[in-house]
Amino acid sequence: MISFDLIISLSKRRGFIFPGSEVYGGLAGTWDYGPLGVLMKENIKREWWRAMLEPHIYPLDSAILESAKVLEASGHVRNFSDPLVECQKCKKRFRDDHISHTPGDIVNPNTRRCPECDGNLGEVRRFNLMFKTHAGAVEDESTVVYLRPETAQGIFINFKNVVDAFHPKLAFGIAQIGKAFRNEITSRNFLFRSREFEQMELEYFCDPQNAEQYFGDIRAMRMKWFIDLGIKKENLQFHDYDKDELAHYASATTDIEYRYGLSENEFSELEGIANRTDFDLKNHFKGYSWIEGEFVAKDSGFVPYVIEPSVGVDRAFLAFLIDAYTEDEVGGEKRTFLKLHPKIAPVKVAVFPLVGNKENITAKAKEVFNDLRKHFTTRWDDIGNIGKRYRRQDEIGTPWCVTIDYQTLEDDTVTIRDRDTARQERVVITDLKNLISEKLA
Amino acid sequence: MISFDLIISLSKRRGFIFPGSEVYGGLAGTWDYGPLGVLMKENIKREWWRAMLEPHIYPLDSAILESAKVLEASGHVRNFSDPLVECQKCKKRFRDDHISHTPGDIVNPNTRRCPECDGNLGEVRRFNLMFKTHAGAVEDESTVVYLRPETAQGIFINFKNVVDAFHPKLAFGIAQIGKAFRNEITSRNFLFRSREFEQMELEYFCDPQNAEQYFGDIRAMRMKWFIDLGIKKENLQFHDYDKDELAHYASATTDIEYRYGLSENEFSELEGIANRTDFDLKNHFKGYSWIEGEFVAKDSGFVPYVIEPSVGVDRAFLAFLIDAYTEDEVGGEKRTFLKLHPKIAPVKVAVFPLVGNKENITAKAKEVFNDLRKHFTTRWDDIGNIGKRYRRQDEIGTPWCVTIDYQTLEDDTVTIRDRDTARQERVVITDLKNLISEKLA
Repeated sequence: MISFDLIISLSKRRGFIFPGSEVYGGLAGTWDYGPLGVLMKENIKREWWRAMLEPHIYPLDSAILESAKVLEASGHVRNFSDPLVECQKCKKRFRDDHISHTPGDIVNPNTRRCPECDGNLGEVRRFNLMFKTHAGAVEDESTVVYLRPETAQGIFINFKNVVDAFHPKLAFGIAQIGKAFRNEITSRNFLFRSREFEQMELEYFCDPQNAEQYFGDIRAMRMKWFIDLGIKKENLQFHDYDKDELAHYASATTDIEYRYGLSENEFSELEGIANRTDFDLKNHFKGYSWIEGEFVAKDSGFVPYVIEPSVGVDRAFLAFLIDAYTEDEVGGEKRTFLKLHPKIAPVKVAVFPLVGNKENITAKAKEVFNDLRKHFTTRWDDIGNIGKRYRRQDEIGTPWCVTIDYQTLEDDTVTIRDRDTARQERVVITDLKNLISEKLA
Repeated sequence: MISFDLIISLSKRRGFIFPGSEVYGGLAGTWDYGPLGVLMKENIKREWWRAMLEPHIYPLDSAILESAKVLEASGHVRNFSDPLVECQKCKKRFRDDHISHTPGDIVNPNTRRCPECDGNLGEVRRFNLMFKTHAGAVEDESTVVYLRPETAQGIFINFKNVVDAFHPKLAFGIAQIGKAFRNEITSRNFLFRSREFEQMELEYFCDPQNAEQYFGDIRAMRMKWFIDLGIKKENLQFHDYDKDELAHYASATTDIEYRYGLSENEFSELEGIANRTDFDLKNHFKGYSWIEGEFVAKDSGFVPYVIEPSVGVDRAFLAFLIDAYTEDEVGGEKRTFLKLHPKIAPVKVAVFPLVGNKENITAKAKEVFNDLRKHFTTRWDDIGNIGKRYRRQDEIGTPWCVTIDYQTLEDDTVTIRDRDTARQERVVITDLKNLISEKLA
């Protein structure tokens, strides 16, 4: 597998991803998307919407700041925590499950030592992963609000609003893309586990009788999405949870795992698909709130079940990046390139004027550039020899490079060069747009 | 002007905007975008990118969580505050400038009374508007982070990263759309002043000599954007700041104001355009950080100036909504409709099968629907009479409604009805796509 350092360094150097607050030493677990990162991330989100937006799927964009009551009802205030130990000497805290245990420790936890200063580690305590803040002038219990730890709850609490406005029949879905926040004690592995991240979640509400069927369909559909967008099959796998692995709200869960190549465990979670049953709707519309019983479907006597495919935008971004990273040889020279699916690639076409009969060629190239950029994300590069320009585009995954040369001035043809094969083809300028459109379709 | 209550109620009923955390009594100053709200907001953002994304403008998406050091350097920790008074009896807090003053108060502030319980109000104190939280396991001064109060600082701190990756020449811009947060004591007026909101900001870096010129160009360009997207000219105005109104970082500022019709002051800020000079770059790359002097342009000896047009997505959304709200009469009946620019309208086309020869007509209508929805956001409605369906689409601003009727089965024509004139036209199905595309162009 590719080393993470290579990916991080390419990401920064070429303007995909910068470390958050870097000028001031960085803020662990936050990342800023640079110009190419923004374009690529937007492509991923657009492809997700395209796959989701059937007529019976309703988009939503709920607030990041959530009332504490929402997260009390959902169980997050009580349960969304990691086990922590604090060193009684240096006061540093560690995740209990990240510290190596000795047989003696397990018998008597109080003998455990701090991995940094060798002080005594105290009892294991639960540490809530939600970021807490206060809305309003007073900082007390009454003004506590949380940054949402998942976008899903924003969907559940708006279930009645969507039903009242659109009167959908089962099965229907509500989908959301948005930021979520988790105060991870050990945020690490680049985009894999950050404190601020973006989720793409669909909550698909259905008759409990059909839940298993939809779970299977969505599980297959989501795997296909990654493969269709170019992730290699052998780097993806399903992980179906055993009963004892399930979260308290789920009756079935499957992860789609990607081979990120993190530490010992090569495959890690990319997307989770869960049958959350009627747990969340019952929480918000029965147990805790004024709307008791409203969402028991009128004539059928059940609360809808919900199937949830949930994927991190940043994890998907990372998987696309790792999977695309390729080294080969072209004309005896080593090159690094990103074999990104054209739909995911941040830049679709680059336009190069050949150096030489400069004015005429540059003017013609500008024409081609200005025409192409009406339809595709297009870059201009007139610096250095053509070989170097190809390498620069290869490294950011641009699928096609168009060169305007002497012959162009005579017959209005240009060369279009394919990133993966490094082969060039001569085509008429007026065919360019359709050629690229077809390849992108 | 339209009453805010009408707009809020239509927004909720039809699925544009729901109050945040509403099921639990709401969280003041937060709003959730419903299905139509998401579509309309995406349209606004897309039109902004379209206007911005010239080849020399670089997109960015920086983290919401910012290191305290970033906001110390920018001056926000020290200066970004409101004057507050606290009642010594009931402990409620108020913005000093929102409480009515008597001549006696002004002479002796200690005689002022609480507007709620008539207790004594204390001294005026500064209250910082930033939301504060802690990243990491320990809650102390060392782990304080803020939710960014503007997206601009994320751009400034990435200035070097963008320059290193792309080597742009002046003038060039970095643009960002993203959430920002302000802990307003009195969040009110629907989307106008919320605690969580979205900004669209461009930072346009240039030679100080040209700053005034660019300021003027951008000021005009941004006003034109609103007018081109259908906001009535008479509801927009410039407000050029006097010297004594300017923020400490700005040498010139103009607001584009919209006539929201809030209280006495009808016009309020929609967008701000500021000449921020070299204040921010000097802050981040000279005064506080390791990179002293790096960004003084090599051969010319200056730090770039920056022109910043900054607009709230939610305020723009609100302005489009208010401006579009129209009441008229059609066929002797009152109707309410949103006269949204087709580019801003959440749904572009609705398809109606005429009730009657049901199966054939419905099948044909489904064909038309499935074809149109490949290209445009399209809705299906087969409930109630055609008049009612027109009204439903009018109310959400759908510019065109297509009806499939008996004649369609004979000659493959349909009626297309215009929202604003309520007039129908008969067209061939195969012309529909081009007809709508042209109107949208």
